[in-house]
Amino acid sequence: MRNLKVIISFNGANYHGFQIQNNAPTIQAELEIAAENILKAPIGITGCGRTDAGVHARAFCFNMWTERVIPHMGFVKAMNGLLPPDIAVLSCEDVDDNFHARYNATSKEYSYLIHNGSVRDVFMRDMSFFYPKSLNEELMAEAAKLFIGIHDFSAYCKAESLELVQSKKYGTFRKIYDFTVKRKGEYVELTVTGNGFLHNMVRIMAGTLVYVSEGKRTIDDVRESLAGGKRELAGVTLPPQGLYLNKVDYEPKQPE
Amino acid sequence: MRNLKVIISFNGANYHGFQIQNNAPTIQAELEIAAENILKAPIGITGCGRTDAGVHARAFCFNMWTERVIPHMGFVKAMNGLLPPDIAVLSCEDVDDNFHARYNATSKEYSYLIHNGSVRDVFMRDMSFFYPKSLNEELMAEAAKLFIGIHDFSAYCKAESLELVQSKKYGTFRKIYDFTVKRKGEYVELTVTGNGFLHNMVRIMAGTLVYVSEGKRTIDDVRESLAGGKRELAGVTLPPQGLYLNKVDYEPKQPE
Repeated sequence: MRNLKVIISFNGANYHGFQIQNNAPTIQAELEIAAENILKAPIGITGCGRTDAGVHARAFCFNMWTERVIPHMGFVKAMNGLLPPDIAVLSCEDVDDNFHARYNATSKEYSYLIHNGSVRDVFMRDMSFFYPKSLNEELMAEAAKLFIGIHDFSAYCKAESLELVQSKKYGTFRKIYDFTVKRKGEYVELTVTGNGFLHNMVRIMAGTLVYVSEGKRTIDDVRESLAGGKRELAGVTLPPQGLYLNKVDYEPKQPE
Repeated sequence: MRNLKVIISFNGANYHGFQIQNNAPTIQAELEIAAENILKAPIGITGCGRTDAGVHARAFCFNMWTERVIPHMGFVKAMNGLLPPDIAVLSCEDVDDNFHARYNATSKEYSYLIHNGSVRDVFMRDMSFFYPKSLNEELMAEAAKLFIGIHDFSAYCKAESLELVQSKKYGTFRKIYDFTVKRKGEYVELTVTGNGFLHNMVRIMAGTLVYVSEGKRTIDDVRESLAGGKRELAGVTLPPQGLYLNKVDYEPKQPE
């Protein structure tokens, strides 16, 4: 059996997330149908994580096992021929038997894209969050710096998922490596890298920065929220269409 | 009666063009429904031109007559509240009684966007033409320069529309002011400004430049095609999803 690592991008607008579900279109279901069609055998896919409905990926990683010896370029082309146009396979490679797309991930980078213009952008409606009021990106960048480091992100987890997260090995602690806020014309892009993210964590961090810009939260509120603070100290969960998984890293980070 | 000049943008992916049609969704129909809802009277809209199914506009202009005195900002907001998310009103203003969005247009700028990458871009599938083979944009730019000036564009008109065009005042002659070819990463953007364009003219010019890059047409073929040459001297008509109307100008051009 060979273990194949595959990188894909997808536009999540028409899917109920990556993870397979009954009676709802998912990225994983489309990938399994295409791969089974090519490899003529049942295929199980292990994603690097879940994504919510409407969330996008520029470079999502999964691994899969197969008995067939597949030429890499041929597999990429065959998959892209069978997949719907909003999912694309970018590359694939053989990896070690012990490679696991979720367990071995050492860091992920996400972006949250805000369209901060006066009128909606008809070309980006499913691919950004439209926020027409003025945004203070300097203040947002100042607050964003507070997220960097190891913190208890209890305040930045979807309520329904908190209990499950608390029961796991690392609980609600995560390490953020970097968090930038950049304006490009009418767009403000938040980019965050971390060793892992709780459910809705990026969307709540993004919403908190918007609340800081609006004066609904202070820099002190953010500081307090990061010491295992309550969900109310953070901001609103921004909608999924602004969120992009940019990349997943499997290199061990330098020891400190 | 007041004459209102309105600028809109639209994503044409889900429409059969601007111009109203029976039994097919069009931009004009959506605009008239929204405007009539706001103004409580039948409204007739005069567009700056037709657009084909799937073609986009960054700034399309139309004018309409109304007896109601409308606050401009209020009209823009009300329209955007009623229109579908892939059409947006950018601005409106009162204009002279003799302003006519089509007859008074002195120039238009179009872009044609080619995604020249190895794998399809899942975020741009309805908004660019995917062309994975390598493109020689220097050679394309050289050929594009030949389009500048006054030429007989018979070879650059959809066959079914040629007879109608020939019967009109300016026939098949048009003046091109500028034509640039620029690469930005995996994207090649062609931008052309002219005093008018025949049916499919930009898409055929774009296809001709791709044929030049492929070696299917020579620089001399292009030169010959511009002297009232035959359609076969030009290239293929590229698909609509790469085409954008960028702006319409109503200022008289400097006399030469």
